[in-house]
Amino acid sequence: MIDSREEGQGPRNALLDVLNRRPALRRPMWFMRQAGRYLPEYRAVREKAGSFVNLCYNPELAAEVTIQPLRRYDFDAAILFADILVVPHAMGLPLKFEEGEGPVLGTVRSMNDLDALKPVAGSFEVRKVCETVRLTRSLLAQDKALIGFCGAPWTVASYMVAGGSSDRVQAKVAAYQRQPWFMALIARLVTESIDYLSAQADAGAQVVQIFDSWAGDLVGSELDDIVLKPIAAIVEGVKARHPGLPVIVFARGIGLNQPRAAAIPGTSAIGIETETDLASLPRDIVVQGNLDPVALFAGEEVARREAVRVCGGVDRQRHIFNLGHGIRLGTDPTVVGAVVDAVRRFDER
Amino acid sequence: MIDSREEGQGPRNALLDVLNRRPALRRPMWFMRQAGRYLPEYRAVREKAGSFVNLCYNPELAAEVTIQPLRRYDFDAAILFADILVVPHAMGLPLKFEEGEGPVLGTVRSMNDLDALKPVAGSFEVRKVCETVRLTRSLLAQDKALIGFCGAPWTVASYMVAGGSSDRVQAKVAAYQRQPWFMALIARLVTESIDYLSAQADAGAQVVQIFDSWAGDLVGSELDDIVLKPIAAIVEGVKARHPGLPVIVFARGIGLNQPRAAAIPGTSAIGIETETDLASLPRDIVVQGNLDPVALFAGEEVARREAVRVCGGVDRQRHIFNLGHGIRLGTDPTVVGAVVDAVRRFDER
Repeated sequence: MIDSREEGQGPRNALLDVLNRRPALRRPMWFMRQAGRYLPEYRAVREKAGSFVNLCYNPELAAEVTIQPLRRYDFDAAILFADILVVPHAMGLPLKFEEGEGPVLGTVRSMNDLDALKPVAGSFEVRKVCETVRLTRSLLAQDKALIGFCGAPWTVASYMVAGGSSDRVQAKVAAYQRQPWFMALIARLVTESIDYLSAQADAGAQVVQIFDSWAGDLVGSELDDIVLKPIAAIVEGVKARHPGLPVIVFARGIGLNQPRAAAIPGTSAIGIETETDLASLPRDIVVQGNLDPVALFAGEEVARREAVRVCGGVDRQRHIFNLGHGIRLGTDPTVVGAVVDAVRRFDER
Repeated sequence: MIDSREEGQGPRNALLDVLNRRPALRRPMWFMRQAGRYLPEYRAVREKAGSFVNLCYNPELAAEVTIQPLRRYDFDAAILFADILVVPHAMGLPLKFEEGEGPVLGTVRSMNDLDALKPVAGSFEVRKVCETVRLTRSLLAQDKALIGFCGAPWTVASYMVAGGSSDRVQAKVAAYQRQPWFMALIARLVTESIDYLSAQADAGAQVVQIFDSWAGDLVGSELDDIVLKPIAAIVEGVKARHPGLPVIVFARGIGLNQPRAAAIPGTSAIGIETETDLASLPRDIVVQGNLDPVALFAGEEVARREAVRVCGGVDRQRHIFNLGHGIRLGTDPTVVGAVVDAVRRFDER
């Protein structure tokens, strides 16, 4: 029997149902970087905030942009508006976002640099993000889920080593060399990420996702020790404090190794990059993805066709419809609406 | 019996042996972008040539840089020094390489643009490249193989659409929309690439490789129709004229779909990106790759360890040792030597 309400928990939500392997009323759907620059109403708030960093730490405005996409589209979840660099920022590294240039972050390239960092727990940054979570949860419709998140240790460390840029050569060299300071940085990010995600869950996040955008960079024993095991340690630490909290692991670009991400104990679902066909994955795992964000630039007809192709590759009871990567600046909001409609129609056939 | 000479064909060569599925005396080895900016002797010749384009069309200098790496390292093959943009250039698009900026190429974004292009056969550009092949073959030691190459239609078309930059959004949109001019461009590149590779084989290339650096961009039916089928058509066309010519297909980034590249009739080997573990691929195909070019920045010890890991994943009778992508600017030539040594030692254990 599928009831539209859970005991004592408000209305049923398709995302929570699929993550908990309960029969869902429909295929859950949300988009990565859902609250973002492709929406004019986001850009208006962003302008009011003055800077991207100000927006991240202004709970009223951050909650507003978190909710904006759900006013337009029939999504099942909102994802907290924040940045994966909140953790290094809360640890004490300077952070600013140059207009059109991307982030500029203080660097960690030695044990001394690492020793100078603070714990994130109780920091201004984490308190503000948690206020956003609380406020968003109070403003969000009862039948919508709120997703919290953090970056995974490898991806966050790569930005800390590079000073904000996405050039991972220096971080990869440190990883290959198993530099003691680098391995200690990864271990430290595990601890801080557990605290950060737990604080989000305490504040009302009902699901958390760990984003490893650059997981595909590493191979062999480095993939094991610097990508997969640190993620597993975060999942274990978060689940120890929040046993019922579903965790989604998005280890982008690991392709053939995705089943290993799915096998991390406590993982409820894995995000899949566009390049991996959902139909090629084992049928006992819950997968999230993987429409190509570029397909949204090819017009409504193509975007609908591609959305239908993605849906056709996986049963809706174990699929969270999403993009394979973040939505791009310049995406036409009308096309996003067409994709949402195509997914809903596909399941109503 | 393994003889060191083939009948009437000069000394045995490990690359040709493995590609022809004959017992090889050792694991063949060459590096992508082998002749390149990481070598001081290359930079000296490059300076003399005045510009990158001049170097591509100067047979004496191009042959010299093609051979340079074999003076330093115990490689089994030289790869023609040229650029994948020779084909669009020979078709009539303006091309220049801005210092530190990458290529600037004329664009093709309509049927009119496409109609204005010329056949490459007999062009100045192709004649010069073929002179380089002839000269290189005459200068190269008899026991070394000479590899010719072209870019694959998808990758070359993406540069033609973008005007030389590697931003593939516009090309992907045209691909998703199956724009008639774009599909005609892909078909045209098939024909021109057949002529170009055949001319290289006529001039003395003993192997050809088709480089699809951005193959991993496309999925589903676009992967079939715009990546794999056009490559298959090139292989078929080249083999019709040169039945004995081994063809290597490097469809970078297609991961799980690599066995489909291997199944293209007439393909002797497939190149594998760093991200795909060679040990995970079917054991009946010849694979080329896939040391991470960034591992060469982590010092001799790490580079040797990673080279050994790659060798350990695949039997040497069906492996061509190579990088998973082109060698990077700034690579230490000493570390390249250490990798070559590590591979040779591995097989002598």
